[in-house]
Amino acid sequence: MTTLKNDTFLRALLKEPVEYTPVWMMRQAGRYLPEYRATRARAGSFMQLCMNAELATEVTLQPLERYPLDAAILFSDILTIPDAMGLGLSFAEGEGPRFARTVRTEADVASLYAPDPTDKLQYVLNAVSSIRKALDGRVPLIGFSGSPFTLACYMIEGRGSDDFRNVKAMLYSRPDLLHAILAVNARAVTDYLNAQIEAGAQAVQIFDTWGGALSHAAYQTFSLAYMKTIVDGLIKEKDGRRIPCIVFTKGGGQWLEAIAGSGADAIGLDWTTDIAEARRRVGERVALQGNLDPNVLFGSPEGIRSEVARILTAYGEGSGHVFNLGHGISQFVDPENAGVLIEAVHSLSRRR
Amino acid sequence: MTTLKNDTFLRALLKEPVEYTPVWMMRQAGRYLPEYRATRARAGSFMQLCMNAELATEVTLQPLERYPLDAAILFSDILTIPDAMGLGLSFAEGEGPRFARTVRTEADVASLYAPDPTDKLQYVLNAVSSIRKALDGRVPLIGFSGSPFTLACYMIEGRGSDDFRNVKAMLYSRPDLLHAILAVNARAVTDYLNAQIEAGAQAVQIFDTWGGALSHAAYQTFSLAYMKTIVDGLIKEKDGRRIPCIVFTKGGGQWLEAIAGSGADAIGLDWTTDIAEARRRVGERVALQGNLDPNVLFGSPEGIRSEVARILTAYGEGSGHVFNLGHGISQFVDPENAGVLIEAVHSLSRRR
Repeated sequence: MTTLKNDTFLRALLKEPVEYTPVWMMRQAGRYLPEYRATRARAGSFMQLCMNAELATEVTLQPLERYPLDAAILFSDILTIPDAMGLGLSFAEGEGPRFARTVRTEADVASLYAPDPTDKLQYVLNAVSSIRKALDGRVPLIGFSGSPFTLACYMIEGRGSDDFRNVKAMLYSRPDLLHAILAVNARAVTDYLNAQIEAGAQAVQIFDTWGGALSHAAYQTFSLAYMKTIVDGLIKEKDGRRIPCIVFTKGGGQWLEAIAGSGADAIGLDWTTDIAEARRRVGERVALQGNLDPNVLFGSPEGIRSEVARILTAYGEGSGHVFNLGHGISQFVDPENAGVLIEAVHSLSRRR
Repeated sequence: MTTLKNDTFLRALLKEPVEYTPVWMMRQAGRYLPEYRATRARAGSFMQLCMNAELATEVTLQPLERYPLDAAILFSDILTIPDAMGLGLSFAEGEGPRFARTVRTEADVASLYAPDPTDKLQYVLNAVSSIRKALDGRVPLIGFSGSPFTLACYMIEGRGSDDFRNVKAMLYSRPDLLHAILAVNARAVTDYLNAQIEAGAQAVQIFDTWGGALSHAAYQTFSLAYMKTIVDGLIKEKDGRRIPCIVFTKGGGQWLEAIAGSGADAIGLDWTTDIAEARRRVGERVALQGNLDPNVLFGSPEGIRSEVARILTAYGEGSGHVFNLGHGISQFVDPENAGVLIEAVHSLSRRR
């Protein structure tokens, strides 16, 4: 394995000393970049882009060519697992993901299984290997998966939802069915992330995009408990280095103490949380990743720098902070503004 | 004035002793009720229904005929103020609200003014008087308004939004313009709520539907500060009774201590907050309203009763709790299930 030239991101996740605050951006390889749009057009569909290791590598590296980012993240989708379960994922243009089949009945649930990642998800592992090789030790590569609950939301609804009516109906009338789905998903995510680690991922993030739609009580039982199972089952070390795990529940700011007890090395914060208060609440247990409002990037360069400064100051001295957006970067952001953000994080955190 | 036969709701808001936990439901007069849909069809458009005092009274009372609710809420919309400002509100079927004009430039902002509620909003005051008369002291009547920030979101975007791109662009590049809009809105909301109180509203609620889309820091400055101004300017007493004010920021669970300092009598909680923890955090300063996940109503009767019991137990002994949903009831809920909820709140809270 090539030596890692910039391991600031990994050190910050483990609260080891760093020279500056490392930064990456959720969805950094995405539609706001014209070069991404060009590759995407060549690939055909979004899923064809995910499935082509060469093109997935190309788009993963595009933001690193533009900006001095401290980490790369695998270009893929959180819905690869339910697709590998045979639910038939497609993306209608401008409409978000759709599944051909949903999981709602006892029979649907009984036929679910955790896919072998080296079978139907081999294309993801190929992308991981290819990206890792192309990075050549420049920065670490992050692997990822959706959380069991977030995957279940799409599997049950068959698409995105603004009320998760079918998920909630199951939760409040047949919790046993939902638990059965989540158990399969937790197994599948564990195997998938471990396979990504074996293929070269140097850190992993669990995206719990919809855990924040749950009540306090339901979050613990139906989302966090299954993420704990995954964290317990992950490969902890590879090639003599710790593989840090980040848990990101969007809308989970009220539950940080519980998330900090999950065994994860770091918690992703959305922009609604005061990072100073978050640090006080979780103590020394975990590192924090976040938490700029992604829509600050629609503001002026001065507005962006001022918000970066506010967050760096709020986190305060010492390691344990990875700068990021509180959610993915919008396709409508001017790439220049992303550059302003990254420069501001680096220069302002070095100065302190 | 007729004597109030059931003032449990008002007493709970003021933390005075009550025999049971009072309950009402956000959007209780709404599309889940077939009788509402029938009146709505007779009215023509949604705004015609709001503007017709007789029909607005009819739909306000419909849920009270079905269920032993402890409060009525004025049937109206949060966007009446920007409409009265001349922005041209309309509701395209199945598409949500639209404004013909947006407020984005210096010139747009300069021409904004707080409308005299006895002029263009007289139809709302007529509805308040008419409903109050029809209630005949049965239960108290709640008046309401959108918060200055929530109104500004619609005024700037011209419609609902999932990223509030234009609002955030203004906030992070021209905060002075946003503050100017919010100052006008705060004046308008204060005048509007006071006019509702004069017309007969016995409690008021400020709906801060979109405050939760802000960062911790921006929430304090751009939403909460203006709600404080309103609370300061509200009529505190009428006919010898305190007029309680409820502030409800959806997604505001991380900021309860700050909201409790706004001067409001009660805080509305969405379903993501643990009400036991919320009570501990706000202490004796305010009452709490909430906080059942509205989608529990898609579950079984047993599931509904079990969640009601969980919330009542979490709040614990003593007054200061008004039971409600954490957000509006869905149009797809079976009215029978709403009945199960209300019966459960009353019977389970009497038993304790």
